[in-house]
Amino acid sequence: MYYLDNAATTFPKPQEVYDEVYKAMTEYGANPGRSGHDLALRASRGIYETRELVSKLFSVKNPMNIVFTYNCTESLNIAIKGYLKPGDHVVTTSMEHNSVLRPIKHLESIGVENTVVKAASDGQIDPVEIKKAIKLNTKLIVTTHVSNLTGTIMPVKEIGRIAKEHGIAYLLDAAQSAGVYPIDAEELGVDMLAFPGHKGLLGPQGTGGLYIREGLNVEQFIQGGTGSASYSLQQPDDMPDKFESGTPNAPGIIGLGKGIQYIMNRGIENIRSHEENLTAYFIEETSKIDGIQLYGPCNTSLQGAVVALNIRDLDSSEISYVLNEEFGIYVRPGLHCAPLAHKTIGTMEQGAVRFSFGPFNKQEELEYAVKALHRISKEL
Amino acid sequence: MYYLDNAATTFPKPQEVYDEVYKAMTEYGANPGRSGHDLALRASRGIYETRELVSKLFSVKNPMNIVFTYNCTESLNIAIKGYLKPGDHVVTTSMEHNSVLRPIKHLESIGVENTVVKAASDGQIDPVEIKKAIKLNTKLIVTTHVSNLTGTIMPVKEIGRIAKEHGIAYLLDAAQSAGVYPIDAEELGVDMLAFPGHKGLLGPQGTGGLYIREGLNVEQFIQGGTGSASYSLQQPDDMPDKFESGTPNAPGIIGLGKGIQYIMNRGIENIRSHEENLTAYFIEETSKIDGIQLYGPCNTSLQGAVVALNIRDLDSSEISYVLNEEFGIYVRPGLHCAPLAHKTIGTMEQGAVRFSFGPFNKQEELEYAVKALHRISKEL
Repeated sequence: MYYLDNAATTFPKPQEVYDEVYKAMTEYGANPGRSGHDLALRASRGIYETRELVSKLFSVKNPMNIVFTYNCTESLNIAIKGYLKPGDHVVTTSMEHNSVLRPIKHLESIGVENTVVKAASDGQIDPVEIKKAIKLNTKLIVTTHVSNLTGTIMPVKEIGRIAKEHGIAYLLDAAQSAGVYPIDAEELGVDMLAFPGHKGLLGPQGTGGLYIREGLNVEQFIQGGTGSASYSLQQPDDMPDKFESGTPNAPGIIGLGKGIQYIMNRGIENIRSHEENLTAYFIEETSKIDGIQLYGPCNTSLQGAVVALNIRDLDSSEISYVLNEEFGIYVRPGLHCAPLAHKTIGTMEQGAVRFSFGPFNKQEELEYAVKALHRISKEL
Repeated sequence: MYYLDNAATTFPKPQEVYDEVYKAMTEYGANPGRSGHDLALRASRGIYETRELVSKLFSVKNPMNIVFTYNCTESLNIAIKGYLKPGDHVVTTSMEHNSVLRPIKHLESIGVENTVVKAASDGQIDPVEIKKAIKLNTKLIVTTHVSNLTGTIMPVKEIGRIAKEHGIAYLLDAAQSAGVYPIDAEELGVDMLAFPGHKGLLGPQGTGGLYIREGLNVEQFIQGGTGSASYSLQQPDDMPDKFESGTPNAPGIIGLGKGIQYIMNRGIENIRSHEENLTAYFIEETSKIDGIQLYGPCNTSLQGAVVALNIRDLDSSEISYVLNEEFGIYVRPGLHCAPLAHKTIGTMEQGAVRFSFGPFNKQEELEYAVKALHRISKEL
């Protein structure tokens, strides 16, 4: 088995993630924050430890400003819909995932305007274009950190600076970068940071989160029991309770903590350079394949561990099917929930075969994948 | 350890639930529905199997009408906010959890009216009062099936009939009943059914769901990647994708399937009578304790496996603390995220100590708890 679909979810996870999820379920599977008995407190403490680890990873001072969610999509929805109001304007890019574009398009119906800044054909965004898109009623800029289609790294520092200069909030979608690229929320000038737990952070599925800068006024859209202010029919305003209604995924969140610890122990820079090496090797070797078309910058200083490609006019699903059936290689074909990004790179019809690498991939696996692509190029 | 806090989350779960979560994480931890490779398909199939099991359990014909969510609170929010529009009126009861009351109170700000029907002091609701509360603009009735505070079983059949007669949708909160009481969604006349995965259904935390009757017009409030209609900037209208954006908690949902299988194998009637026996024993024995005050109907034909009590005017948190520290008994004190229910039974100040039983509790544990309460009553 050759799992090269890490941009969808990293697999495998560190063994200690599996072990801790199992332990949390079997040894202290109580409901955290709902009672004061030993088991509930142990679960609560486990969640708090993960909150601390997340805030440490993103250089956020107060762990209570980290909210846990179901997935990065929910985080983005909370951020976008909780912050924007009718009459506001939001700037985003053509490289965004549908988890950003669909909420923003949905908000048109309540009178929130948007401008989608077009990327170059390798997915790069010119910060000047972001600046130009700003209007008097612009309240939010939303961009991804690393494109899920082309791996293109966005100029987040520059965009953060532009946002700050204009007094506009900046929401960063770290779906493909959290756990691989260092993110200092304050230094980057990020006001909200949405992240999945199950990708680069190496936690289990069913986990995600959102950092919200202290003092930023964001509404919650789910109300319910928080185990706090239970006498009140109003959702409490305290963080993170305001955004965390109902029973959380305690074993998942606690397991996520182990994923982050693994990253910290191995060193985020080491993970990044490991993935950069893999990506550089893969780009170099695949570019020699007859009839191959690579997308994105094809330069690891500008590109994360995601490589999208096509072979001539072959259907991306067919290539992916053969990779699976004949070689046991698992990748993702088709459209990657990012329609405007496909338009940008010109693959709306054909889709693209996406290879994405994680901290546990080895160069031998990529060598094998390169051989497979050579054969497919010859034989199909 | 004596875990008597099963209304918060059941613990333990059947061993096969733990095992399957572990297996799903370690053996096929791919992202379901995002690619067609073997590992992704295996995860997708696992989720579909759980969807089928849920629909079988609730006698729902089409499994695609079951939506998976993070927890029951999210399910209730989707149902309430996705169905009600400005100008509508909703009828609910004073026995509801904050996961129902807070969203309904929140909707007042956009012009959705509500009427809260008061229960009797044992938590019982007179269906006639529900009927009386119906107005011309009433669009929805929301009630719990079993109170999380007093265990009171609501007259759901009668309420379902009233809703049907008036052409009003009925949303049932099965937080405390799913997996213990048989629920035939069609027979009950339920239009939407919200349920947690981690309580009576014996699944892991981070799982919940919502059944939506075919043809009922409910809006989603989260948009994002669904792995379907990826070319479109609009959320697809197909079920269940409309409500399932982003990466789901695949290992959790797959584990939930094992919980439901356990219920089906053991027999829901057997689980129910096991819990009824425990509850009857506990009510009978605790009612002999000096100074004890029991809440709820105190009759297992009218009450689920939840018993709330106080001893004289002792603080419920103090009793719970002593139970934990001196006896290793885990229960929940205070307010149970159901402020109007506490008002109804007159425990807004004192709170209540809640004992709640699950399919793995044994009578010996309850005997021990009864002894502990006798001692507390004497010594505190």
